[in-house]
Amino acid sequence: MSTTRPLRPVGGRSREVPGSGQGSATAASRVLAVLDAFGPAHATLTLSEISRRAGLSLTTTHRLVGELRVWGALERSEDGRYGIGLRLLELGALAPHGLQLRELAVPYVDDLHQATRANVVLGVRDGADVVYVEALRARGAVRLMSRIGGRWPLHATGTGQVLLAFAGPEVQEEVLSGPLTSFTPHTITDPAALRRTLAEVRRTGVAVAENQLTADAPALAVAVPVRGRGDEVVAALGVTVAAGTTQASALAPVLNATARGISRALGAPSAQPPSRRCT
Amino acid sequence: MSTTRPLRPVGGRSREVPGSGQGSATAASRVLAVLDAFGPAHATLTLSEISRRAGLSLTTTHRLVGELRVWGALERSEDGRYGIGLRLLELGALAPHGLQLRELAVPYVDDLHQATRANVVLGVRDGADVVYVEALRARGAVRLMSRIGGRWPLHATGTGQVLLAFAGPEVQEEVLSGPLTSFTPHTITDPAALRRTLAEVRRTGVAVAENQLTADAPALAVAVPVRGRGDEVVAALGVTVAAGTTQASALAPVLNATARGISRALGAPSAQPPSRRCT
Repeated sequence: MSTTRPLRPVGGRSREVPGSGQGSATAASRVLAVLDAFGPAHATLTLSEISRRAGLSLTTTHRLVGELRVWGALERSEDGRYGIGLRLLELGALAPHGLQLRELAVPYVDDLHQATRANVVLGVRDGADVVYVEALRARGAVRLMSRIGGRWPLHATGTGQVLLAFAGPEVQEEVLSGPLTSFTPHTITDPAALRRTLAEVRRTGVAVAENQLTADAPALAVAVPVRGRGDEVVAALGVTVAAGTTQASALAPVLNATARGISRALGAPSAQPPSRRCT
Repeated sequence: MSTTRPLRPVGGRSREVPGSGQGSATAASRVLAVLDAFGPAHATLTLSEISRRAGLSLTTTHRLVGELRVWGALERSEDGRYGIGLRLLELGALAPHGLQLRELAVPYVDDLHQATRANVVLGVRDGADVVYVEALRARGAVRLMSRIGGRWPLHATGTGQVLLAFAGPEVQEEVLSGPLTSFTPHTITDPAALRRTLAEVRRTGVAVAENQLTADAPALAVAVPVRGRGDEVVAALGVTVAAGTTQASALAPVLNATARGISRALGAPSAQPPSRRCT
């Protein structure tokens, strides 16, 4: 299930476009710049906000937004602001490592959510980030960190640390050599400390991250790997609870059992029952 | 929560692009044509398949696919095939009427799924289609009709009939005057019959669709409206069970209770408790 795509900057979005110079290549990059203007903190924008954030003239922005709207990538609300259209949700849902993995995993993730009543996320690696393809929130939880489509740098979350620990050496070196963004005083920003953490994750098969992403709501995140057909790590399953409510050692067994169920459904050899493994 | 966007052909995707003639407009439409090449039945494609489906030369396809890959809209698997990238899932998740509605509704939808153990979907209208923003499948159910991002013509599903029944007259006339695609012998394809069905949905507040989408697995779909801040219908909540297992009359109360909970959370006046409504 692994893919080959160049790593992108940690937590950022590359706007680099290859082979420019041709008029049409530039035009394609403009389309992508319009889409890039939208983000979790900018879910709806006016035309002039899009123009400013995309670095395009109002005339060009107006024309491109018109095309994207007809196609369904953008929609305009009655107050005149633009937002992402459902056509992009429809397309995004086709990502082979995204909602298709979610499809298969959802009954298991749902069981885990019922059993723990915690925030549950299923994340996959995209470059140097983890992207959540499933997120079930504990009732009453107001944290918006875990939602489908959410993206975080690998080093700062439990699921990200699992994915990084089991990624190829080139991915690890890229992340370890790059800047490690600090989200709280507990985020691991020292490469040597991160290296030790990753070794510990590989040894134990469990990542435990305390207060590394949010300072306002102390949280304990525990995550384990999900394996695919070749026993490679294809995803990470994590739960997050309020700090002090549950021990990581109490969460690891149910997480491991659930991850094993998903791995078995994905065809991972190590997750098959012994009888089947020998035949 | 309603938006203004031109209706698109029932079940189809418009490839019409306005204001062409300029070189860059054409280039933008080419980018969208590359993305349009992908679909549920074409989740991964080779370069030449993209080229053929998009109607573009191999050279142009190669260049655009390269740009889209760097940006994250496409990814290449190790076997050389291309699929939709997680960047589009991330963007699609920002759709104001999509996963943001799902965020708020998910605890209620989860409860309904636990209570009924049925397939549960939450759908919103996009032009003349319903798009599912949440879909929880019954354990063991193999039907792939209900998945996040799934898109169906309004007239052919329970949730679609709810959304159509409460849509503006121009939407209803557009659908009633257009071709009504037949999926099974039970799909309503007669405009007069559809008009009667919609009136009944408005009268009872419940849509009941039997065997209208799949012929291979007879199914009963029951759906009810979810209302927004202005009491307008913003979504439809539906359950699907195997035909003959449950009566529609047994599903309507739990569906209505759940839809009312979501409507209340959305701020719908008619779903507020009486005490609050009077103050």
